[in-house]
Amino acid sequence: MDFKVFILGSGAAIPTLQRGTTAHLISCFQRNILIDCGEGTQIQFRRFRLKFQKIDIICISHLHGDHVFGLAGLLSTMQLMGRTSALRIIGPEGLKELISAQLDLVGHGDFFPLDFHILPAGFSGVVYEDKCLAIHAFPLAHRITTFGYRLMEKPNKRRLDKAAFDATGVSVSYIAKLIQGDDITDNEGRVVRSADVTIPGKPAKSYAFCSDTAYTTAILPHIQDVDLLYHEATFTNAFADRAFKTGHSTAAQAASIALKANAKRLILGHFSARYDDEEQHLAEAKVIFENVFAAKDGAVFNI
Amino acid sequence: MDFKVFILGSGAAIPTLQRGTTAHLISCFQRNILIDCGEGTQIQFRRFRLKFQKIDIICISHLHGDHVFGLAGLLSTMQLMGRTSALRIIGPEGLKELISAQLDLVGHGDFFPLDFHILPAGFSGVVYEDKCLAIHAFPLAHRITTFGYRLMEKPNKRRLDKAAFDATGVSVSYIAKLIQGDDITDNEGRVVRSADVTIPGKPAKSYAFCSDTAYTTAILPHIQDVDLLYHEATFTNAFADRAFKTGHSTAAQAASIALKANAKRLILGHFSARYDDEEQHLAEAKVIFENVFAAKDGAVFNI
Repeated sequence: MDFKVFILGSGAAIPTLQRGTTAHLISCFQRNILIDCGEGTQIQFRRFRLKFQKIDIICISHLHGDHVFGLAGLLSTMQLMGRTSALRIIGPEGLKELISAQLDLVGHGDFFPLDFHILPAGFSGVVYEDKCLAIHAFPLAHRITTFGYRLMEKPNKRRLDKAAFDATGVSVSYIAKLIQGDDITDNEGRVVRSADVTIPGKPAKSYAFCSDTAYTTAILPHIQDVDLLYHEATFTNAFADRAFKTGHSTAAQAASIALKANAKRLILGHFSARYDDEEQHLAEAKVIFENVFAAKDGAVFNI
Repeated sequence: MDFKVFILGSGAAIPTLQRGTTAHLISCFQRNILIDCGEGTQIQFRRFRLKFQKIDIICISHLHGDHVFGLAGLLSTMQLMGRTSALRIIGPEGLKELISAQLDLVGHGDFFPLDFHILPAGFSGVVYEDKCLAIHAFPLAHRITTFGYRLMEKPNKRRLDKAAFDATGVSVSYIAKLIQGDDITDNEGRVVRSADVTIPGKPAKSYAFCSDTAYTTAILPHIQDVDLLYHEATFTNAFADRAFKTGHSTAAQAASIALKANAKRLILGHFSARYDDEEQHLAEAKVIFENVFAAKDGAVFNI
């Protein structure tokens, strides 16, 4: 199935012409999920020819401006362009009040339904689930309440090994149970083990978003074995002290987290505007974790 | 003296790649005044290589998102980039609360002083004045409380006609009074008329900003004889009904206002995103007022 991450903004607090503020669009299994929405996100959608009206869910990590100041504008434009379908918005306490304070002023007639799902500080668990996708939230370590998100494909069903099944001679009425992973005993006392007549489904894939956060191993249980990990890397080693003081990470720290989490690939992002490019970040990360990439506005990662 | 208007956003409610939401930077007499600040204004400053840290005063016309959703982000960035000098912010009731609701979340240490000057609904009068510049606010006719602004150069002093003055034989100590426009009588009873020995200073110039507004002649006293008039022209004649219903103007209405106000030049702007270009707006306006121009992002008008 289709599972892609579009980077709409790869910069930190100060937007520049090269790097917008944080926003990731994840397209998976016909769902479109936006994580974070810094100022100018709606323009980035246009710039990269993506369709914001197709967003089903918006997850907000925290209420710093570079992650949320584009949300009221995006919602206003959705409404002006005729959206009627409901939008689920997931994020920390205060989010609903912040957005309402802005939208109440706009007064463009009736707004489409905004279904806020507010997470208490420290929350960890499932925040959305349907038949093919689940979204988990977990706490990050920043200056204010901040959540990471992991988008997980539901486990794929086992598939029948037809030749092996036919050889058992049991009724086809047992297939459903065997595919579920259950062993069966038929009327005639024949035992068939699921593992002998089915093959595992494709592994379920996942994407984890961790920004903004200081280095913390507390997130490891939530991102273990993730296929694609986005972890902020605001600073290089030279500014490790500043990273610590401001609740951010260095590229090396992000790489260390990817290594410990057994992630398959790592994207670095949220680069401070003080850096002209991300070469130093990549160099410092690669020493620790080889399969690392730098986020760029407009980049697409397939999972 | 230098008196320029930079158009940072020429579009209406929905920003596009071609047209940002409303923001005008006026540079006059070493002051920099920003009028309105839609989402993405700080990026437009970078795009057109203008310096937002040099802004002295921000005037907000009204609290619809396309005129104010970029303000909290701009102020945050000013602070992050080290601004310490005070900023005067002029606008309607509710502005301070809206901005505070957003900035209180940011919490980037001590903020530079924000000196809010809040205008009650219906206010008309001087909102800023120094030795070379005055800013007047006046009510526009929109769906919510909305102000227009006129920036006026202070009248230039008369200059001495040296030959004519010398011919009078009166003491040079009378020059200051004569330049002020006063007639004098010296110790010997000689009468000298200011008009006979001085010549008028350069005419004081002015710029008026009128957006968003329905067509209303109530604004004429506030914009009479203006050198450069910006008047919104969201729609063409074909959508005159929609203009009326939404509290906006057509290009022809804007031209009619310019004609009645005896404006020297007219800029049209706030074009609805339904229009690919502004040819129809210009054509409909030119029938009524010849000296008309269409705002474009990045355009500069010298006064």
